Amino acid sequence: MAQINSTVGDLSGNSRKIVEYIDRAKDWGVDVVSFPELAVTGYPPEDLLLKPSFIRDNGESLKKIARAARGITAVVGFVDKSEDIYNAAAVLHNGSIAAVYHKIHLPNYGVFDEERYFRKGTEPFVFFLDGIGIGITICEDLWHPDGPATDESFAGAEVIVNINASPYHMGKWRERLELIQIRARENAAAIAYNNMVGGQDELVFDGFGMVVDEKGNLLARGRLFEEDLVVADLDLESIFGARLHGPRRKNEESLRTVQTLRLASSRMNTKKPLLRKKISPDPHPVGEVLSALIVGVKDYVRKNGFEKVVIGLSGGIDSALTAVISVDALGSKNVIGVFMPSQYTSERSKRDTLSLAKNLKIRTLELPIKSAFSTLLNTLEGAFAGTSPGIAEENLQARIRGNIIMSLSNKFGWLVLTTGNKSEMSTGYATLYGDMAGGFAVIKDVPKTLVYKLARYRNSLEKKPLIPESIMRREPTAELKPGQLDEDTLPPYKVLDPILKAYVEEDKDIEEITKMGFSQKTVMKVISMVELSEYKRRQAPPGVKITPRAIGKDRRMPITTRYNKE
Amino acid sequence: MAQINSTVGDLSGNSRKIVEYIDRAKDWGVDVVSFPELAVTGYPPEDLLLKPSFIRDNGESLKKIARAARGITAVVGFVDKSEDIYNAAAVLHNGSIAAVYHKIHLPNYGVFDEERYFRKGTEPFVFFLDGIGIGITICEDLWHPDGPATDESFAGAEVIVNINASPYHMGKWRERLELIQIRARENAAAIAYNNMVGGQDELVFDGFGMVVDEKGNLLARGRLFEEDLVVADLDLESIFGARLHGPRRKNEESLRTVQTLRLASSRMNTKKPLLRKKISPDPHPVGEVLSALIVGVKDYVRKNGFEKVVIGLSGGIDSALTAVISVDALGSKNVIGVFMPSQYTSERSKRDTLSLAKNLKIRTLELPIKSAFSTLLNTLEGAFAGTSPGIAEENLQARIRGNIIMSLSNKFGWLVLTTGNKSEMSTGYATLYGDMAGGFAVIKDVPKTLVYKLARYRNSLEKKPLIPESIMRREPTAELKPGQLDEDTLPPYKVLDPILKAYVEEDKDIEEITKMGFSQKTVMKVISMVELSEYKRRQAPPGVKITPRAIGKDRRMPITTRYNKE
Repeated sequence: MAQINSTVGDLSGNSRKIVEYIDRAKDWGVDVVSFPELAVTGYPPEDLLLKPSFIRDNGESLKKIARAARGITAVVGFVDKSEDIYNAAAVLHNGSIAAVYHKIHLPNYGVFDEERYFRKGTEPFVFFLDGIGIGITICEDLWHPDGPATDESFAGAEVIVNINASPYHMGKWRERLELIQIRARENAAAIAYNNMVGGQDELVFDGFGMVVDEKGNLLARGRLFEEDLVVADLDLESIFGARLHGPRRKNEESLRTVQTLRLASSRMNTKKPLLRKKISPDPHPVGEVLSALIVGVKDYVRKNGFEKVVIGLSGGIDSALTAVISVDALGSKNVIGVFMPSQYTSERSKRDTLSLAKNLKIRTLELPIKSAFSTLLNTLEGAFAGTSPGIAEENLQARIRGNIIMSLSNKFGWLVLTTGNKSEMSTGYATLYGDMAGGFAVIKDVPKTLVYKLARYRNSLEKKPLIPESIMRREPTAELKPGQLDEDTLPPYKVLDPILKAYVEEDKDIEEITKMGFSQKTVMKVISMVELSEYKRRQAPPGVKITPRAIGKDRRMPITTRYNKE
Repeated sequence: MAQINSTVGDLSGNSRKIVEYIDRAKDWGVDVVSFPELAVTGYPPEDLLLKPSFIRDNGESLKKIARAARGITAVVGFVDKSEDIYNAAAVLHNGSIAAVYHKIHLPNYGVFDEERYFRKGTEPFVFFLDGIGIGITICEDLWHPDGPATDESFAGAEVIVNINASPYHMGKWRERLELIQIRARENAAAIAYNNMVGGQDELVFDGFGMVVDEKGNLLARGRLFEEDLVVADLDLESIFGARLHGPRRKNEESLRTVQTLRLASSRMNTKKPLLRKKISPDPHPVGEVLSALIVGVKDYVRKNGFEKVVIGLSGGIDSALTAVISVDALGSKNVIGVFMPSQYTSERSKRDTLSLAKNLKIRTLELPIKSAFSTLLNTLEGAFAGTSPGIAEENLQARIRGNIIMSLSNKFGWLVLTTGNKSEMSTGYATLYGDMAGGFAVIKDVPKTLVYKLARYRNSLEKKPLIPESIMRREPTAELKPGQLDEDTLPPYKVLDPILKAYVEEDKDIEEITKMGFSQKTVMKVISMVELSEYKRRQAPPGVKITPRAIGKDRRMPITTRYNKE
């Protein structure tokens, strides 16, 4: 299994990478190599799929790849076009496209819109390579108990190849492992679960491809969040043995017609396969999130052609964690910090920011906003006459900072990373065009309580903590007016975060959430804040999805609605 | 047909409105009254549909409506829940829910995501009211040649009730009329096509409900973009006559099982029905767009609880048209103009702005940005040392304006309307957080060439033009540096707009567009501008969809992609 990092729309780059991995697999004496779902186009290509030229170019790319695939059999994800378009897997053999499988179960929930683009396939497919049956499935196909894997194993597949572009969320790897173990046992077949790697807008793919035998034993597992060539040697005798008792299907009627094809192995390399079997260890539960964020930043920045990023540093934990992640992703020399103090900025914020910047070895500019703030207040003096200072004056400061940091971006080509967390984004506790201004929102899907865990975890990896203890211990504040604290406006984060999880991610209602042990008044206030701030989220930059429901394509709420607003 | 303006999530408000229209229809001596698709919840409710409490509350609302529906039969769109949820129509009769129909064809393209939420229905449905067969269909159901209307007419339906939430685009009413005429003739049945009215985020629904007889003759048509009760008296004898020759189905095999129900009319009012039959005239091709924009603004502002709006006036045509539309939608006293001159702003811009404001009778503030601009340049002096003025300095000005106008919004609760057109939004010729800052982008889907047509059309309705001739005649300029013209950066709009339409709306490729008569260099430049500015559009406010493909839910492009970027 070649778990590669495709880039959406980079047909020639993806093709080159696929051919390189085909060559590497051949060198290693591999018989069959698989590539992720839509490896040729990248995933998800979204409305590029509506462009006939894109579909045509993807088909041409596959043909070129096929010509390079000699002396090995390769399963490659691409878009197939006949009377409609299909999410497909090509079997490449002897320099040509020997067969094409069409994905049968198309996900159309969460971040997925596959019914928008693709027609459903109808035929399971098995190819026999020197008599060994290999069934093909694509991603969601495997999640259905009576999906094509069952038909294929009935038709003689000893091995099920499953190719995926399965977006990461916390701990999802464990759900996948349990699933393929169940499917392997049900079907008495080995399963090779290949998964895409890398970041694509708000999604990250974690790779971590797995091979299990017919009993569900893990034979091999690829690296987490990194490209890898994952190799396993299957004990076919053992599968034949298990087959004597036969995999049972639950529902005989659902049996589909299975297409089959016989191929003779064309392996030119007759030396004993060089097995590099390995099983990547289970990840640390906080460490895996950190890796997801690092890959998300790295790929968004690099795939969009940026070299450097700029981050507004406030002296708070959110911007500190964002800076650490960015340095991990891009290196110190590619991260620039900007400290933009106002008259409300404390000495502690300055001290902590400088100490963080020193630990991270990043260049930091100090651009005070005091004079711009007083000039703009002057400009607005007539219009504001007779009013008392409030939100308008607070946001004015945040938007001056937004303007300054965007000016640096425009002048030097640095991508602006924003620093808001999921607790803020969900309640609208952020300034649109102010601290929300930027190209990528690194910790947008990270609740504040997890921000602390990530910071502590990351600090624990170093002898000397990167994030100063003073930042870790400080009470959260936006410093937009004297003595301001987050808790003046929001419930404490240890109360807020579980309410948000229940409402935003789990669709629980007021009553259910109250029963979890919160006051109804608090619950209603939080829900109302969520509903009233949808317009801000709609204009927020994308960020890395790490929970089962992120803010973005995952959650499509109307702005105009009266539900739950009081 | 009650073509009403539901608000998404306003279950009690929508229910009240439905009951009011039921009462009105009873007063008029009507036998059967229909309401639009999802009239109870509003359309589209999007991910509110994932909240069990929302589905439950919608069901309770329907029960309340049913209790009020005595002495008439009503067909009401709502969400039905059994083992899954359905886009459904309830037949209310004698104070209870007599039957429920489930939509069979679920659109999942363009702005539609119905497969994300609903299960497909499988059974066409006809109820017989005193022996007269009335078949039910929902929106997309009618667009399929062998859809449920065919089954229903075979099963004895003389009338097909079709309830819709069909979003507006230019000239779509004509496509709908042609469609229902074809279906009426095919099935030898009268068709009552009811459509939602009003704005919902980026969508507007134009109503314009139609009743055609079995020969396709238009018997009645409701108002365009306004609530209405549309009444027609059907000549059943004529339908019986047409039935002697029988509607033919093309494909006998596709016949579905049709559910039927017999009801006795419970009309308490035995007086002769008060027929107010009327056919609204065909709209003016530019006038209908203007109406769409006015309704879009009015409903976005009002349904989100705002009273007043604020608009940055530059002296250009885009902000002038936006102001006129807003005054038409909300009245002069609810529109505030802000003129924010810099050192690059000409006297002409000021003169034209003041003259426009006078014509529109709107309050206008003048808040110069010169001092804020020079203060911020000072702040950035060290960071910018050694660089030449460019985009950064231009955007700085636009973002100071964005900050000022948002401050007014925060201070006084005025919603900011932005003024960018589709030509700018498509090419990224706009400043993110600058002129793009605001809650609603009125003319976001209007290409520049259509902006002029709309302005001329609107001027033609007045004795004295609202938009001064000097604005109409002026060469477009952003006035962010001396002597700047749009054409320094963009091709002339009469070249740009057809290229954009071909690429953005019609998915044509470089070769096809070049063949339309444009230089390949220009085409490639435009396409590259489109692809490189996706990140800006992702952070833009919503605006009114008026073309077959708007920027928003209609067009879902990845930000990270290498396709067509060179």
